[in-house]
Amino acid sequence: MTILSREWSSWIQDVEASLDKALPPADTFPQVLHEAMRYSTLGGGKRLRAVLAMGACAAVGGDPAQAAGLAAAVEMIHAYSLIHDDLPCMDDDDFRRGKPANHIVYGEAMAVLAGDALLTEAFAELARLPEKYGVSPETAVRIVGELALGAGSRGMVGGQAVDLLSTEQTPDEETLRYIHTHKTGALFKAALRSGALLGGASEEELAAITRYGEWFGLAFQITDDILDEVGDAQSLGKPVGSDRSLGKQTYPRLYGLERSRALAAECVEHCLEALKDFPERAGLLRELASFILQRTH
Amino acid sequence: MTILSREWSSWIQDVEASLDKALPPADTFPQVLHEAMRYSTLGGGKRLRAVLAMGACAAVGGDPAQAAGLAAAVEMIHAYSLIHDDLPCMDDDDFRRGKPANHIVYGEAMAVLAGDALLTEAFAELARLPEKYGVSPETAVRIVGELALGAGSRGMVGGQAVDLLSTEQTPDEETLRYIHTHKTGALFKAALRSGALLGGASEEELAAITRYGEWFGLAFQITDDILDEVGDAQSLGKPVGSDRSLGKQTYPRLYGLERSRALAAECVEHCLEALKDFPERAGLLRELASFILQRTH
Repeated sequence: MTILSREWSSWIQDVEASLDKALPPADTFPQVLHEAMRYSTLGGGKRLRAVLAMGACAAVGGDPAQAAGLAAAVEMIHAYSLIHDDLPCMDDDDFRRGKPANHIVYGEAMAVLAGDALLTEAFAELARLPEKYGVSPETAVRIVGELALGAGSRGMVGGQAVDLLSTEQTPDEETLRYIHTHKTGALFKAALRSGALLGGASEEELAAITRYGEWFGLAFQITDDILDEVGDAQSLGKPVGSDRSLGKQTYPRLYGLERSRALAAECVEHCLEALKDFPERAGLLRELASFILQRTH
Repeated sequence: MTILSREWSSWIQDVEASLDKALPPADTFPQVLHEAMRYSTLGGGKRLRAVLAMGACAAVGGDPAQAAGLAAAVEMIHAYSLIHDDLPCMDDDDFRRGKPANHIVYGEAMAVLAGDALLTEAFAELARLPEKYGVSPETAVRIVGELALGAGSRGMVGGQAVDLLSTEQTPDEETLRYIHTHKTGALFKAALRSGALLGGASEEELAAITRYGEWFGLAFQITDDILDEVGDAQSLGKPVGSDRSLGKQTYPRLYGLERSRALAAECVEHCLEALKDFPERAGLLRELASFILQRTH
């Protein structure tokens, strides 16, 4: 965590605080369900999607504090997707972020429900944006649409479906690209666009943030694949090599490690290029892009 | 289906048409996912939740045609809950509405994803209400909040969690009531309240529709339990006695069949009582309440 600047790490604390406030308290009935929701959402993670949303809000001149509810909603969607992804019928992973996966602790059925409830609660939090954060109803509705499309069958869930269907097949570049732009990239992009909309972005600014998000997502996925091959299980908090053992499509399998690293660096260049007309307020988005090449988890 | 009036059955056709329009086309990539979503959503069902939403909209003087998108969203949420409910790790039901359950046809993993995608798509459709149906953004945001709370951990999913946790325990009236008011009742109520909001309900009208919804949900669940004991498997489209074999809490187990039937009739009386100040426009809601006592599936 040493490479995180003070600014980023302090924003991570803000995200944790907003998540804690946005989630129903752990003693809410039924307690097991609410504990399971909190178990996989609080207390860990880089909060990349949340910080991207706040960074985009700041980049276009908005107040990132106003994006705290949006940030919490985005992290709930991310947490739900990880819970369902780890299920025995999906990727069958027993560990996540260095601790037992949700279904290992709470059982499969409760893990399905905790994921369902987190996805639903994310939209409940978006519905509270006008009252809690002074967001206009027009913008709140547009954000609901952005996140629903980014997280849905033509976004994140679509990517997961293709990932699942293509397991044990010969890698093919088009399929690989679809999986990455959808499974991971779509939610990054939706988080960024939502943050920009909340910050009052012009159409040009929104387009630039969108380009940034597309390159960011691709760079992130390439380094994710690389880390699955060469990373350290302890830093990652999950076993290394699980993609390969599942026969998954990855960049290293398709291009080798060296070319994959060069591709990731190119993507980050494109990220920075997309921000060229942005003032100093885009500093956090620049930092996040550069972080990708250094990340170890 | 003979007891359905022309009006109700024609509204069911409207719901099917809005669902068909609101869901991504079956040839949208990834096709299997979109087929799985459509398989469990289109072509069947009483569309009770959708018709309740349109009925509430009409009851308060709104145009039910304007509630078509809301109706589609509500049915998507219902369909997702059934897909996840039928999973092997949940109720492990192989049949639903007289055809193989989603996971039997598409596999467990795809069924999880199809459910996730339907829940997400429901909110995407709600985000389109202003543009597609001329609903004000204020009302659209409020409806997002109503449905997210009704479907979430303090609503429908909470009820499913308690249902799961209480299986194989001695029935207890408080638990039974919680399960029913949440697992089934919360989405009925949210659909009704959303329809009323969309139709421009006053606070008094909203309160009356809410009371109607609470009694409606309870009556529905009691008759559901009765049908599981004495219904006809072919009409129901699922095996009879599955609640008992799973050791589930039901009204017949707690009170016996006769007292359960009397309780359902009392609930319907309360439904009609809640509508006493409503004009003839509440005819459909009255009809729906009376239908509960006659239903065979």
